[in-house]
Amino acid sequence: MRQRNKPWAKEKLADYPQYVIASPDQFKGKWHDVFEKKQPLHIEIGTGKGRFLTGMAKANPDINYIGIELQDSIIVTALDKIIEEEIPNIKLMNVNAEDLREFFEKGEVDRVYLNFSDPWPKTRHAKRRLTFKHFLNIYEDILIDNGEIHFKTDNQGLFEFSLMSFSEYGMLLKYVSLDLHNSDFEGNIMTEYEEKFSNKGNRIYRCEVQFK
Amino acid sequence: MRQRNKPWAKEKLADYPQYVIASPDQFKGKWHDVFEKKQPLHIEIGTGKGRFLTGMAKANPDINYIGIELQDSIIVTALDKIIEEEIPNIKLMNVNAEDLREFFEKGEVDRVYLNFSDPWPKTRHAKRRLTFKHFLNIYEDILIDNGEIHFKTDNQGLFEFSLMSFSEYGMLLKYVSLDLHNSDFEGNIMTEYEEKFSNKGNRIYRCEVQFK
Repeated sequence: MRQRNKPWAKEKLADYPQYVIASPDQFKGKWHDVFEKKQPLHIEIGTGKGRFLTGMAKANPDINYIGIELQDSIIVTALDKIIEEEIPNIKLMNVNAEDLREFFEKGEVDRVYLNFSDPWPKTRHAKRRLTFKHFLNIYEDILIDNGEIHFKTDNQGLFEFSLMSFSEYGMLLKYVSLDLHNSDFEGNIMTEYEEKFSNKGNRIYRCEVQFK
Repeated sequence: MRQRNKPWAKEKLADYPQYVIASPDQFKGKWHDVFEKKQPLHIEIGTGKGRFLTGMAKANPDINYIGIELQDSIIVTALDKIIEEEIPNIKLMNVNAEDLREFFEKGEVDRVYLNFSDPWPKTRHAKRRLTFKHFLNIYEDILIDNGEIHFKTDNQGLFEFSLMSFSEYGMLLKYVSLDLHNSDFEGNIMTEYEEKFSNKGNRIYRCEVQFK
């Protein structure tokens, strides 16, 4: 997601340490203490402007959420939503998915969400896709046993690649919809991007896969 | 595929024993002797009017093909094509997929094709879908080790179900296209049904899955 640069973003993120965790490595293995309540921990990787994350957190107060987003100019918009609505069960991390093992203990995360990840359509960039085996290995390390990834995208090529990547990794495909908005799936919370592109007539693909 | 009844169909099938194998159980373990050449054996389950089968057999003279179709009023059309074109590397079997173990020895088949199988959309009929685990077990028994199923359909629900069924069975998803006719897949041979429904704008889904 391209966004205009916001030179003040880093400073604003630093102004809200109760929402944006500045040094997440210090909480490795102790995330339950960071939130008000000890309850399952779900993370969204590439949380963007935070509409999905805040929607999920409000709909599921019995789950703690962490939104991870590398681009500070985007994650500040997610921060604005959390400040405005005073959502207690969300934290944000302005870090790289590559480094998640530094921030989470083995088995500390109960579920991973990937929404509309960058498709990196060129074959030579396949390793950068967040469903490439290298990343699956990271998610497996920080997830509970039999932990799940819930993934949606409107990018057909990325979805095809991801189904094969999950299968190659030995994961179980528990749910798949090839047209989410015309399916009987209930409780879908849209991202900003999802609303925009589904309004243009793009199909939304969604799946739930489990590590074995 | 519904078709008007052809009371003469059975008789015509019996008139061409060189193409339609009347008692396939007698060739169990000996299919190489039935064809002119000893070469890999691919079978299509639900071969319909035979356009895919005859197209594949002509394009791949180094492979032997068996088309399996339960409905005699339909398989006679496939027979007509074979008679007309004198295709040497095809045989037909007017039998039920349920009984394949009676006709093929373990490991005797090199590949299984499923094209536009009946979707049986009602949940209570899921067991009748040709990608239900009961059928996967039959295919696994007659296929070589690491044998593959190549499957295409325009039915979104059947494709979703099948991806999950393959995964649940522990199969490897080697290839998937969610829009075959707009993909870079080469050498696609269309079925009668495929041409008709893709012309109406329906997407064609295709995958290749392997037993592990």
